[in-house]
Amino acid sequence: MTPHTRIESHLPTFAEVEAAAKRIEPYTHRTPVLTCHSLNGITGAQLFFKCENFQKIGAFKFRGACNAIFSLSDEEAKPGVAAHSSGNHAAAVTLAARLRGIDAYIVMPRTASELKKRAVAGYGAKITFCEPTQRSRETTCAQIVKQTGAKEIHSYNDPRIIAGQGTAALELLQEVSDLETILAPVGGGGLLSGTALSASAMNEQIEVIGVEPEGADDAFRSFHSGAIVPSINPKTIADGLLTSLGDLTFTIIRRYVHDIVTVSESTIIKAMRMVWERMNIIIEPSSAVPVAALLDKLVDVKGKKVGVILSGGNVDLDRLPW
Amino acid sequence: MTPHTRIESHLPTFAEVEAAAKRIEPYTHRTPVLTCHSLNGITGAQLFFKCENFQKIGAFKFRGACNAIFSLSDEEAKPGVAAHSSGNHAAAVTLAARLRGIDAYIVMPRTASELKKRAVAGYGAKITFCEPTQRSRETTCAQIVKQTGAKEIHSYNDPRIIAGQGTAALELLQEVSDLETILAPVGGGGLLSGTALSASAMNEQIEVIGVEPEGADDAFRSFHSGAIVPSINPKTIADGLLTSLGDLTFTIIRRYVHDIVTVSESTIIKAMRMVWERMNIIIEPSSAVPVAALLDKLVDVKGKKVGVILSGGNVDLDRLPW
Repeated sequence: MTPHTRIESHLPTFAEVEAAAKRIEPYTHRTPVLTCHSLNGITGAQLFFKCENFQKIGAFKFRGACNAIFSLSDEEAKPGVAAHSSGNHAAAVTLAARLRGIDAYIVMPRTASELKKRAVAGYGAKITFCEPTQRSRETTCAQIVKQTGAKEIHSYNDPRIIAGQGTAALELLQEVSDLETILAPVGGGGLLSGTALSASAMNEQIEVIGVEPEGADDAFRSFHSGAIVPSINPKTIADGLLTSLGDLTFTIIRRYVHDIVTVSESTIIKAMRMVWERMNIIIEPSSAVPVAALLDKLVDVKGKKVGVILSGGNVDLDRLPW
Repeated sequence: MTPHTRIESHLPTFAEVEAAAKRIEPYTHRTPVLTCHSLNGITGAQLFFKCENFQKIGAFKFRGACNAIFSLSDEEAKPGVAAHSSGNHAAAVTLAARLRGIDAYIVMPRTASELKKRAVAGYGAKITFCEPTQRSRETTCAQIVKQTGAKEIHSYNDPRIIAGQGTAALELLQEVSDLETILAPVGGGGLLSGTALSASAMNEQIEVIGVEPEGADDAFRSFHSGAIVPSINPKTIADGLLTSLGDLTFTIIRRYVHDIVTVSESTIIKAMRMVWERMNIIIEPSSAVPVAALLDKLVDVKGKKVGVILSGGNVDLDRLPW
């Protein structure tokens, strides 16, 4: 997280999550909360899955992008928005911009998958390819912002993004108010911090647990050391969870998250397949990360009502990990 | 369809569908009705998918089996139930029997997939393997019925089964009452005839269309010739649609179904993949058959509100057809 990519810097509040929910409601799906008898049996818990794989663009990222873009004044929005992303954030910003009727300038590493390039182009983005480094992404994006006047939309370290992501847990807790634990995956921390904001405000007894792949355990190490540890050469199939925490997400996570645990690649794949087979829904590896923590019994959920945020479902069906 | 496999022979009425809905409600899932912006765009219709892939045992078959088994008197039920099936009907009968607290004797061809054998065993069936011929299935099942006194549950040509399968369309039309067309796959005709019973009673303007694979087009030929054409050496990836119509299902289909159309294997696979990718749900090839008819524009749905029954989601993830 470099300073120039952060547009606003206050810590969002739960009131901002509630405002976000109202703002994005006309554009987003209220995704279903599914249960699974078989996975309840395996884990010994009563599980409630918030299915963001059914969200527009196939991931929770649309909530934050939508909130950020519809928070802009007409004047701010007019020149369009810009973002750098190799994946779901790019699609989310592009679709939200289209709904707002403005341009989306997307910087993608030239190594991004063809599937994702096509998807983002399909949503109508003006794409610029860059080298696959953080530095190239940021400088390319900064140039575009300078040339076009577009507003940059950071993928997680922005209070409007965090508030938007928090609407998933808000909806989940509206439907199942007596959850005792909520699990969410953690990459940059937008989803986890938003989840924690909503959960702590709506039910202060609730435990919020972040789950991260062992091969990208910077949030785990940051959480337990008390200072942001950057994500260096992360290696995991959960390609939505490669990024480092930002100062906003880290502050919220330290304050409201109870624990962060890590899971192995093999358990992630096993969990992903199990959800496909038992629930007949398609989730991406990042979504399987909290399920993996349940399979490995890393969290005490016996007999408890447990919410699980399934973050997305964008998978290349020609490259399944089994 | 041989006479000894039919237990009751009257044509079911819509009142029996309504009674079935009440009877099975405590045991079945009210499955969600999903929409998909992207598939609406591709087909030009407004599609409403009734997701029986989220039904217990992963298929609509549980509705009929549940209705048949919970229709039995305590005395009739006591010796248990029997069925021959290589697939979803076996799982459906076994789970419904377990919920009723009685034994399920299942005859499976020894060539059935390991996945299905394991699933049915997992639900607690007493399995007998037989040769993979209709004759061997029927004589083995008849022997078991004779030995145990179990009641045989036919997989489609039974008014209680047909009424049970009709509850899917009943629920769909309760949610979206102004559908103009409903599409369902057709194998033995239990789902299609049940769908037609509900649709014709709830909204007489509605068109009910059956869709069948070209490689198993006996219902298509029966419908258009006016006499049951048996299914001989059917060959299709849609392995839920191999069977011939029964006299009950055929009579209802002739009376209430508007048309039956056929689709190619390649379009079935394309449709299946498209639903996986665009909707992030897992459907089996049989479910993709009506979607294939939409892709091939075999039914005029432009601008219409169209219901599609997605029949099930049991797929071997190690043998995907792409």
